[in-house]
Amino acid sequence: MPSDEEQTKYILPEDQMPTHWYNIAADLPTPAPPVIHPGTGQPIGPPDLAPLFPMALIMQEVSQDREIEIPEAVREVYKQWRPCPLFRARRLEKALGTPAKIYYKYEGTSPVGSHKPNTAVAQAYYNKIEGTKVITTETGAGQWGSSMAMACAFFDIACRVFMVRISFDQKPYRKGLMQAFGAEIYASPSEETNFGRQVLGETPDTPGSLGMAISEAVEQAATDPDTKYCLGSVLNHVMTHQSIIGLECIEQMKMAGDYPDIVIGCAGGGSNFAGIAFPFIGKMLRGEGDVRVIAVEPAACPSMTRGTYAFDFGDTGMMTPLTKMHTLGSSFIPPPLHAGGLRYHGMSPMVSHLLELGCIEATSIPQVDTFELAQQFTRAEGILPAPETAHAVAIAMTEAMECARTGEEKTILFNLSGHGHFDVQAYIDFNGGKLSNYEYPGELIEAAQRKLPPVDA
Amino acid sequence: MPSDEEQTKYILPEDQMPTHWYNIAADLPTPAPPVIHPGTGQPIGPPDLAPLFPMALIMQEVSQDREIEIPEAVREVYKQWRPCPLFRARRLEKALGTPAKIYYKYEGTSPVGSHKPNTAVAQAYYNKIEGTKVITTETGAGQWGSSMAMACAFFDIACRVFMVRISFDQKPYRKGLMQAFGAEIYASPSEETNFGRQVLGETPDTPGSLGMAISEAVEQAATDPDTKYCLGSVLNHVMTHQSIIGLECIEQMKMAGDYPDIVIGCAGGGSNFAGIAFPFIGKMLRGEGDVRVIAVEPAACPSMTRGTYAFDFGDTGMMTPLTKMHTLGSSFIPPPLHAGGLRYHGMSPMVSHLLELGCIEATSIPQVDTFELAQQFTRAEGILPAPETAHAVAIAMTEAMECARTGEEKTILFNLSGHGHFDVQAYIDFNGGKLSNYEYPGELIEAAQRKLPPVDA
Repeated sequence: MPSDEEQTKYILPEDQMPTHWYNIAADLPTPAPPVIHPGTGQPIGPPDLAPLFPMALIMQEVSQDREIEIPEAVREVYKQWRPCPLFRARRLEKALGTPAKIYYKYEGTSPVGSHKPNTAVAQAYYNKIEGTKVITTETGAGQWGSSMAMACAFFDIACRVFMVRISFDQKPYRKGLMQAFGAEIYASPSEETNFGRQVLGETPDTPGSLGMAISEAVEQAATDPDTKYCLGSVLNHVMTHQSIIGLECIEQMKMAGDYPDIVIGCAGGGSNFAGIAFPFIGKMLRGEGDVRVIAVEPAACPSMTRGTYAFDFGDTGMMTPLTKMHTLGSSFIPPPLHAGGLRYHGMSPMVSHLLELGCIEATSIPQVDTFELAQQFTRAEGILPAPETAHAVAIAMTEAMECARTGEEKTILFNLSGHGHFDVQAYIDFNGGKLSNYEYPGELIEAAQRKLPPVDA
Repeated sequence: MPSDEEQTKYILPEDQMPTHWYNIAADLPTPAPPVIHPGTGQPIGPPDLAPLFPMALIMQEVSQDREIEIPEAVREVYKQWRPCPLFRARRLEKALGTPAKIYYKYEGTSPVGSHKPNTAVAQAYYNKIEGTKVITTETGAGQWGSSMAMACAFFDIACRVFMVRISFDQKPYRKGLMQAFGAEIYASPSEETNFGRQVLGETPDTPGSLGMAISEAVEQAATDPDTKYCLGSVLNHVMTHQSIIGLECIEQMKMAGDYPDIVIGCAGGGSNFAGIAFPFIGKMLRGEGDVRVIAVEPAACPSMTRGTYAFDFGDTGMMTPLTKMHTLGSSFIPPPLHAGGLRYHGMSPMVSHLLELGCIEATSIPQVDTFELAQQFTRAEGILPAPETAHAVAIAMTEAMECARTGEEKTILFNLSGHGHFDVQAYIDFNGGKLSNYEYPGELIEAAQRKLPPVDA
């Protein structure tokens, strides 16, 4: 029998799965800035959001409670793939010759291969009990859309997904998965909405963008009382739902008899990063253990490392409220990176606030370097990371290699938020020498920043 | 805390993972027929196989030992994804309104998404310790090739995969995954072998077949002492390695306080079926509990239900020894089913022997019916089964629906051998009304059977 020291993975028993999510708002030294109505310039309240979201989610969005109970029906579904394993990357450590201990939480065991169902299932549940008949949402590469489609199938809600046109055309598999769950999928911009028709009228050949797809999904929810909207990242309640990742990690690190010096996640809208990091940051804020926390973004879409901390729209159509966040400007269209989930102009306001507070660091890495390290990871550990996840893998490996240089025996934990089985084209392009690092799109970002709404709250 | 009765999945602790594989040869009432040399018509011995396989695997092939120890280095790698979860399909049971209890073993949590690494890792290990520098193998859809590529990456062996040309052209993602692991991949038939060049000379536009790819891989191994050949199914040692699936299930059913009345697996070459079924059949043969065991094959490639039990070649090039098995004839080319892993003219000789002994049943199901039920499964349980696996899912659901009719509370266990994330096209075609059930290819099978080698041993 292998000794404890040789253990490869740490799995919580099903009956030790967390029963409550963690809401970091309760532990903040200063609260995050309010959400602003773009018309009035004034903070918005829960009723303003009622056309889009069920009240239970709105109350979670503004909650100051540290713990929010996970409904039993949601926990029952979570048990399909949760608790997720925590791995010790022993073969990778050996390959890197590092004295560092590398752990990764693996969220790819969910039926759709990523962490996204953690919030999709919760959002579908609250919509169901408040009588929602149809859920609209957007998706880029499709991780979020397929999660929402699955959650809607479980709770018997119709699901309508606006999928960025270029992904709709280029990623038939994610589309096919959503259809297998029974969802309706529209290439965005579409003929289904006023905003979509307007964009198509002006630019019939547009490849679409996440910002446009959000505008279409929001428009449909805002104009039909039986229809609500779901968002897969950015918002506080999404971050809270994803906290189950880090809460499990805390228990699993206890099983391993260890505690991380560094916690790493990739960040597009911020949800998988928040999921693994917020519970550890919360402990730090409560004086229960210091930890260095690193959010990783692509060098070509660097909202945290090169953007402005300002009020901005979440979508291209400027239909959403304004939130203070690190943003490249809502009119910025990121380069066609393979990491579609990281191609977002903004960042979760809560993640942004923590960056301003100095609780976390942000770093960026170019695309080619990312895949070079991610592929090395794959050859050691077997798992092929999703292109987004590859950014976290790469920085974790970089930190471990630094330990090899200095001799420090740091404990590194990162979130392996999803597998790349739907995204192999990225690795094909990498191995075919067809990947570009993209130049830093400085001028485009400057132009988009000049269009930021003039709000100072 | 949920009660035991509400548990969704059963996970063995890592330190309770089986330490030995199970070899069913030890429990057979009569031994399986010998393997025959096609030239001499006489049984072959271990030395005849030495050009192709390391001696440790050859000795496993002919072993009569009930238990074969899993080397520690193999167990260390297994821990990357093993023990795999056993699920109770509560939402599916509810959707079907059945009093049956449905359990499924999920092998899709392995890094490549299927059960195939269970034997790939073992084969790579034994090759490594006997000094093999290059491993050749064949792959159809790519489940096996990607597993072998991963195993070779772990044990630092060069891997050369002959991939059926039509899959090479149509399934770039599996190819991309193999390349990410560092394997060389050739479309088969290729210019790399005499057999490949011969076929290309005669039929330059051939789509290839698994039988041809086997011939190419075998030819390279037979002609280079540093190169060995690995096969992903059919052979006894492969069935033995896969027994870890069923061995884990036996322990997990104990955790659930239950025991299966019916065990179900899909069968192409037979390895995932053997994996889940052989340990239960062994218990039955030893008088430790009766169980009905069902092997499921596609109606359009029905080796067990419509083939002959006869000596036949394993490959198209007629380079392999002859084994007695249920076969459609090695010259039969199956219709282009989506379940590429079930498109094989023969069947594992050991599975065939058990069918002759009456220890198992075989049944078949047409393609469209398969996907109809598999998609219903997906909407209830979230997991999208691989097209091969879908055959087992469909028959398990059929049995459960029969229980709904009769009121019987049977316990049904099936092997969910792999996820379908690389095979979504099958579901797209199903939902697009483009799937055919294919007519039973009776005339083609009759023609192939007339070409069976005239051996009677």
